[in-house]
Amino acid sequence: MPYSAQDWRELATQLRADSIRCTSAAGSGHPTSSMSAADLMAVLLAGHLHYDWKDPHNLRNDRLIFSKGHAAPLLYAMYKAAGAISDEEMMTLRKIGSRIEGHPTPALPWVDVATGSLGQGLPAGIGMALSAKRLDKTDMRVWVLLGDSEMAEGSLYEAMQLGGFYGLDNVVAIIDMNRLGQRGPTMLEWQGEIYAERARAFGWHAIVVHGHDVQAVHQAYEEAEATKGKPTLIVAKTEKGSGVSFLANADGWHGKALPAADEAKAMAELGNPKCDLIIRTLPPTEKEPAALGQAGAYQPPKYEVGAKVATREAYGEAITALGTAKPNVVAIDGEVSNSTYADKFKKAHPERFFEVYIAEQQLVSAAVGMQAMGKIPFASTFAAFFTRAYDQIRMGAISRANIRLSGSHAGVSIGEDGPSQMALEDLAMVRAVHGSTVLYPSCATTTAHLVGQMATREGIVYMRTTREKTPVLYGPEESFPIGGSKVLRKSGKDTAAIIAAGITLHEALKAYDTLKAEGIDVRVIDLYSVKPIDAETLKAAAKECAGNLIVVEDHWPEGGLGDAVAEVFTDASGPHPNVKRMGVQGIPQSGKPGELMKAAGICADHIVAAVKAGKK
Amino acid sequence: MPYSAQDWRELATQLRADSIRCTSAAGSGHPTSSMSAADLMAVLLAGHLHYDWKDPHNLRNDRLIFSKGHAAPLLYAMYKAAGAISDEEMMTLRKIGSRIEGHPTPALPWVDVATGSLGQGLPAGIGMALSAKRLDKTDMRVWVLLGDSEMAEGSLYEAMQLGGFYGLDNVVAIIDMNRLGQRGPTMLEWQGEIYAERARAFGWHAIVVHGHDVQAVHQAYEEAEATKGKPTLIVAKTEKGSGVSFLANADGWHGKALPAADEAKAMAELGNPKCDLIIRTLPPTEKEPAALGQAGAYQPPKYEVGAKVATREAYGEAITALGTAKPNVVAIDGEVSNSTYADKFKKAHPERFFEVYIAEQQLVSAAVGMQAMGKIPFASTFAAFFTRAYDQIRMGAISRANIRLSGSHAGVSIGEDGPSQMALEDLAMVRAVHGSTVLYPSCATTTAHLVGQMATREGIVYMRTTREKTPVLYGPEESFPIGGSKVLRKSGKDTAAIIAAGITLHEALKAYDTLKAEGIDVRVIDLYSVKPIDAETLKAAAKECAGNLIVVEDHWPEGGLGDAVAEVFTDASGPHPNVKRMGVQGIPQSGKPGELMKAAGICADHIVAAVKAGKK
Repeated sequence: MPYSAQDWRELATQLRADSIRCTSAAGSGHPTSSMSAADLMAVLLAGHLHYDWKDPHNLRNDRLIFSKGHAAPLLYAMYKAAGAISDEEMMTLRKIGSRIEGHPTPALPWVDVATGSLGQGLPAGIGMALSAKRLDKTDMRVWVLLGDSEMAEGSLYEAMQLGGFYGLDNVVAIIDMNRLGQRGPTMLEWQGEIYAERARAFGWHAIVVHGHDVQAVHQAYEEAEATKGKPTLIVAKTEKGSGVSFLANADGWHGKALPAADEAKAMAELGNPKCDLIIRTLPPTEKEPAALGQAGAYQPPKYEVGAKVATREAYGEAITALGTAKPNVVAIDGEVSNSTYADKFKKAHPERFFEVYIAEQQLVSAAVGMQAMGKIPFASTFAAFFTRAYDQIRMGAISRANIRLSGSHAGVSIGEDGPSQMALEDLAMVRAVHGSTVLYPSCATTTAHLVGQMATREGIVYMRTTREKTPVLYGPEESFPIGGSKVLRKSGKDTAAIIAAGITLHEALKAYDTLKAEGIDVRVIDLYSVKPIDAETLKAAAKECAGNLIVVEDHWPEGGLGDAVAEVFTDASGPHPNVKRMGVQGIPQSGKPGELMKAAGICADHIVAAVKAGKK
Repeated sequence: MPYSAQDWRELATQLRADSIRCTSAAGSGHPTSSMSAADLMAVLLAGHLHYDWKDPHNLRNDRLIFSKGHAAPLLYAMYKAAGAISDEEMMTLRKIGSRIEGHPTPALPWVDVATGSLGQGLPAGIGMALSAKRLDKTDMRVWVLLGDSEMAEGSLYEAMQLGGFYGLDNVVAIIDMNRLGQRGPTMLEWQGEIYAERARAFGWHAIVVHGHDVQAVHQAYEEAEATKGKPTLIVAKTEKGSGVSFLANADGWHGKALPAADEAKAMAELGNPKCDLIIRTLPPTEKEPAALGQAGAYQPPKYEVGAKVATREAYGEAITALGTAKPNVVAIDGEVSNSTYADKFKKAHPERFFEVYIAEQQLVSAAVGMQAMGKIPFASTFAAFFTRAYDQIRMGAISRANIRLSGSHAGVSIGEDGPSQMALEDLAMVRAVHGSTVLYPSCATTTAHLVGQMATREGIVYMRTTREKTPVLYGPEESFPIGGSKVLRKSGKDTAAIIAAGITLHEALKAYDTLKAEGIDVRVIDLYSVKPIDAETLKAAAKECAGNLIVVEDHWPEGGLGDAVAEVFTDASGPHPNVKRMGVQGIPQSGKPGELMKAAGICADHIVAAVKAGKK
């Protein structure tokens, strides 16, 4: 060990001083929550963390995640001590235009996932560790700094559970048990043995340690590094504001920068350190990542026009084919793979399939973690249950994560299971995520082609699939660019355009036939790309279809297809079309799909009536 | 004990037979997941559950929650055995128009909360038990039937944690550990001691028992009933499909109704029971609920026009005053009460304030549980963190729950903390919930008046508040009906209407002054009620303001105010106004509120520019 206890203590003092300096300069931030973990992080940085700061994406690097993202000043102080950023840059904390933000984001290359919404760092770390252990087969380690307040989040127990289940001995989580939350004592205060017992019950090795005793911390890290077959939780008893007498274990200092006089007093207590120590961290771990094999061209599965295939099944077949073509594609599922058809992928590529059981928060976080390790994750569950992970999806966007989510069993058309299983707000939810892509195929061919594009699409990419079997509408030669649409029916004298996707597109086609038989011409548009949306085709339809657009969807009226179409005509000068939005009316019950669509007001008959009403 | 082991076994046989009968008649459903818990529920129904079936809302009744909602057939068989529903009604399972739905919903008066999204029954039960123990001070008990698959959900550990923390010895949770999930074995299969260890680590008493040994189950219930100071978890080892040889512990039978031939075979094995047993359950518990005191008139706090008050602070003052007027108002907060100002309520009404720590899923579920016990809960956290509980909010609507949520720290205007703390999708999220109400006050007076109306409003009622202090716009004599709006500026020659709420309304007023000085007249509308929306005022503005509506919001462009306004003009014949939607552009960083609003494109200058551009 090239560093001594004295070195660690000096480094810790600098980390404390820098945490104070940058927050005082910013006038806000979390110095005391940083100071409690300074000794823990000093020992980690100088002697345990394997990392090449010039090559942050190296798969042989350890990863360090501040799950307690508000301790960002400490993280930045570490980056400075490692020589990765300058003192000047560190001092731009929280200033507009600086990448030294209030909570860590991947604006900095050493930050793999954004944190700040508590309880999400460890779950993402579990995804990284799974990727390293099962796919790359490296010796890297994931270090996660947890706050004790965030231990109240259920997401952390999902992560503990999965880490224990998969025996991820490449994970070391450290609770900075400083006893004080935002508004007072935490639930368990300094009862560290309880955290340890919980971890053990989830299959972890657990160590309780004095978090300001650098030698003890060092030994705990060594014990963690030597532990095989299970992850380790280190519960470190610390004091918030540790190192400065008037801050240490004092209430009322959460999230407060020190005013100038207090800052000077604190610095004096710390011995007015020069803050110019630079630490040489250990090099990346040695074992080269396993070669994943050669990527080939994706061959989308082919379907015969008219055959009846559920889009959820086509999704399963498409990701399986994609997995064959691309060795870095992985599938993750929340214990419903026989419903989402992710089990097809599992059968073909068992080593790249990850079961996370019924833990949707962990499902999304695992995907976020895996993409940070260069994988292309597809995560699936019932569309309704992605609502369980909305915060993780939202934070995924802030993490600049490229993840693909597939939600099956959308809408009332799932039938008898009733409203708890029906996704009726998923389109609204994902549309409102920055930079997201929302896809909603109506047939197997479309699904297969879109899955291919999902693989290379950036950001949060969501596909909504349907439970029921529906007829294949297109031959394999068709193309379905994201941002496009398909005009399925068209004449020179259309009196309205019916815009739909998924199950309701098939209702629209039925309505077309009924209307046609009565001599009424309408356009039918397959809006398979909800975001981005094909504004051009919709604007043309508005012009050519007497300004009558009828949007019909198996979703609540708010936030879905109807609003997406309406948005095309905002921000633009008129004349504007009439946009009639037909969404689900009333809380659905159990019943047959057709009965429920009728009750919800979104079946072919309703579309026919809407077209006729619009003509008056 | 009036019932013998033989009685329990006979009842269990009937529950199994009825679970099979009604699912076979429906052609779908979960007979095997019902059968595994039949013995557990037989013993509970006959000898432990205190319940008046004619008076389900009696606060002296025990409560029974099927957290594993897919075992609904068993629940309905219990209702039948208790004489609450007829055999004929039970046999309408999953048929359109029947209240015997695929998963339990409060369409039935004995169902307090809808289940079916796993991991939500116990958290709601914790809310009920807290209400009974801390407020009503009755001796009722909350019984929760859990599935073993759902034990993977983090929300259940949030519930365990809170139940342990508050020492809720009136909670008995029973895991029906049948080893098999939807697509195969659960994570822990029959390792019941691990579930028990976890529960103990969260402060529970835990018992592992053979779930088909009625005498052992009875003793476990007695032990739970006798346990003081902590909740009890009973881990019952069971077999899925128990009671029928070809179903018992057999894979491949999840969620499948028995075809006729298999049904007959199963019935024969069960001894072709007559299925006509009626059980007399124990009467409600004796202790009368504590009187909560007399309700009075709500006196909204008063604010001086022009004073600078954050709406989050006005929220805290308003719920405090509401709590004074109405003794059944409770406040719940997720460890940020000094930021949401729920701590004012805590100070005034400590016995009605509930700290759930940083566990937002439990925060919402506690509110759902408390309203089921007749309380008026107000739950608060940062608006961004309600995304953590979207599934709970969605299910709350299916539960017909009346809950009030208040999200503070909305939008980029929170400043330096950065995007992880900024709610930018909350309006979209809650607008897309069925029957929801979405309020967004711009000043303290409005906040105070709206809080009063929230108390009696049905459904999911959400209020978005602002971190920054903003000037009070209205005097206390003004009224703010839900569904209304305020026209703050108006002339006979308005060239545009600026529609805003919250922080951006104040930008709109600044823009008004700038434009006025340049001789440009615009209307300014305070859209404090986002859902329902004041369509009349908006339509009048469209007509009177040259068809130029400019909507500006501190939210992503999708799903918020802009879409809400655009929706007013869908489904209606033209002419339609131009609706310009100004929402947040790009992922925000850290910075000062004003800097961030400028970067996001939603400040007064942008509004001025938009008005001028629209005039061209």
